[in-house]
Amino acid sequence: MKDEVMYSTREIQELVKSSFESELLLIGNKKPAGLYQPICYALQNGGKRIRPTLVLLACNLFTDNIRKAFPIALATEIFHNFTLLHDDIMDKATVRRNKPTVHVKYNENTAILSGDAMNILAYEYLSRSDNETLPQLLELFNKTALEVCEGQQLDMDFESEPLVSIDDYINMIRLKTAVLLACSLKSGALAACAPEEDTELLYQFGINIGLAFQLQDDLLDTFGDKKVFGKNIGGDILCNKKTYLLLQALNVSEGRKKKELLDWISRKEYIPQEKIESVTSIYNDLNIKHITEEKIDAYHRQAINDLNRVRVPEFRKEQLFNLTSEMMRRNH
Amino acid sequence: MKDEVMYSTREIQELVKSSFESELLLIGNKKPAGLYQPICYALQNGGKRIRPTLVLLACNLFTDNIRKAFPIALATEIFHNFTLLHDDIMDKATVRRNKPTVHVKYNENTAILSGDAMNILAYEYLSRSDNETLPQLLELFNKTALEVCEGQQLDMDFESEPLVSIDDYINMIRLKTAVLLACSLKSGALAACAPEEDTELLYQFGINIGLAFQLQDDLLDTFGDKKVFGKNIGGDILCNKKTYLLLQALNVSEGRKKKELLDWISRKEYIPQEKIESVTSIYNDLNIKHITEEKIDAYHRQAINDLNRVRVPEFRKEQLFNLTSEMMRRNH
Repeated sequence: MKDEVMYSTREIQELVKSSFESELLLIGNKKPAGLYQPICYALQNGGKRIRPTLVLLACNLFTDNIRKAFPIALATEIFHNFTLLHDDIMDKATVRRNKPTVHVKYNENTAILSGDAMNILAYEYLSRSDNETLPQLLELFNKTALEVCEGQQLDMDFESEPLVSIDDYINMIRLKTAVLLACSLKSGALAACAPEEDTELLYQFGINIGLAFQLQDDLLDTFGDKKVFGKNIGGDILCNKKTYLLLQALNVSEGRKKKELLDWISRKEYIPQEKIESVTSIYNDLNIKHITEEKIDAYHRQAINDLNRVRVPEFRKEQLFNLTSEMMRRNH
Repeated sequence: MKDEVMYSTREIQELVKSSFESELLLIGNKKPAGLYQPICYALQNGGKRIRPTLVLLACNLFTDNIRKAFPIALATEIFHNFTLLHDDIMDKATVRRNKPTVHVKYNENTAILSGDAMNILAYEYLSRSDNETLPQLLELFNKTALEVCEGQQLDMDFESEPLVSIDDYINMIRLKTAVLLACSLKSGALAACAPEEDTELLYQFGINIGLAFQLQDDLLDTFGDKKVFGKNIGGDILCNKKTYLLLQALNVSEGRKKKELLDWISRKEYIPQEKIESVTSIYNDLNIKHITEEKIDAYHRQAINDLNRVRVPEFRKEQLFNLTSEMMRRNH
């Protein structure tokens, strides 16, 4: 009864955790310490390890032997943390997961160079995959990695653009966030030599989950519960961040309401709490919370539909369904 | 008479040039322009394209069909230019090959992100190699790329270390400069499915050429002819750069001479031309030019010895011998 030894999400998370711990020991012993210690620091500061978990869950859909997907799981998580490290320099962020960012704890040059080494290290892990699947994995990973850079560039471009369309915004978050989740799922399936149609469905599943997840992040920044969300509420409003909420509000508002919103955006001086409350109140008048929830649900439904069509027994999909529902249920 | 269609170095340089030009057109058309234009800018600003030339010359030792080494040639040159781009940020360099550096022409965030994309792009080109050779090529490239980062870290570490041994210095320039030349040669040979012993000899040839080349760079910075060297003479002396010359001078000097040298290093105020002349005069008293030339010649002889042992007909090695002699004959 091979199927009975399928892994639970909890077990997979434990596997990810322990495999990271042993790799970090190896990386931490490499010289020069000035290069590798910051890498350990960045990787130790765990987070939820969503991407490697998705790699292994996707692999486990098709086979109980998920060992061969381990190099991909590690590569994907290292790559993700490399992008966070360099993004933090670009955004001048001082805190990441309650700890000083790498360029604050060390210095900016260290953060640039250690990030570069992490990008290469991700490829080193990926290259440990089986020779037969390696070309396909590399093609997917190269494409995805470039897209993540494109997404970050668009995100920076949008800051100085006066008008961003909803379509352009969705495309940006697809590149910046969704494609790496999609790549995680598809590459886990590729490691299991899954049929092409199924790997493509998992890719689409990942895109839709990623879009839903990012829109939910936008929503929670304004309408979330600080205790659950873990960040201060209203940060996006204060810095006029072009989120789905703001772009949609600019889209559906007109007349006096639109003028009021544009006025808040252009004000140089204001009392922070007043700005948050006023803009939130405009959002409420415009039904923005509901519009955003509808969009999130639509992406989530589409994702469920994608996973439903993957041709493996239903019970094998349970873990993936549960994890993504949990991700979507963060707090609203 | 297949051997007769071997390429000359000039022809290979032309091939490299035209293949770069067509790839730059493709890259320049990619969106977002904010990401890809700086990449084109960095890559257009040519230089001597030594590394891709070495890739193709090494491949051409074993086969007249050098097409399959093109992806490696492009990957290696893109990777090299990525490291220059990020090094220029770290060194706060404002000029590269007579043009503003990327972070000066654009901005630092652009330089970080476009550099990251170049690193990934290098892997994308490398991945276009034949599936059979890909795992070996990747293994070599991953190892080399990490070593280049290690070399850059050591170089930065040395700036603040009071004492650096000659051995540590040689190890640093091996990592920072020589391994990528060695990797270029070995991977060109791997693309031609050359015997392992020969690929290893070419790797060693590259290491020795790289060390000789870097030591010559140190030598020319003090003893070169400004018109030929293209940089101001004495720059290393002014900033107390721990070059082979300085480390060797500290090594062989004693008593009053050593005190005099240490005194110049520690002075906060001085007339630049006086410092250059005085330190150069100490170097002359200590015979440093001769000691360095001996070391360069030793590495060069070792390199020639490596290439001699590669088991292909002598006439096939001519281009590689000539190119490296030319590199070594820059101006002293």
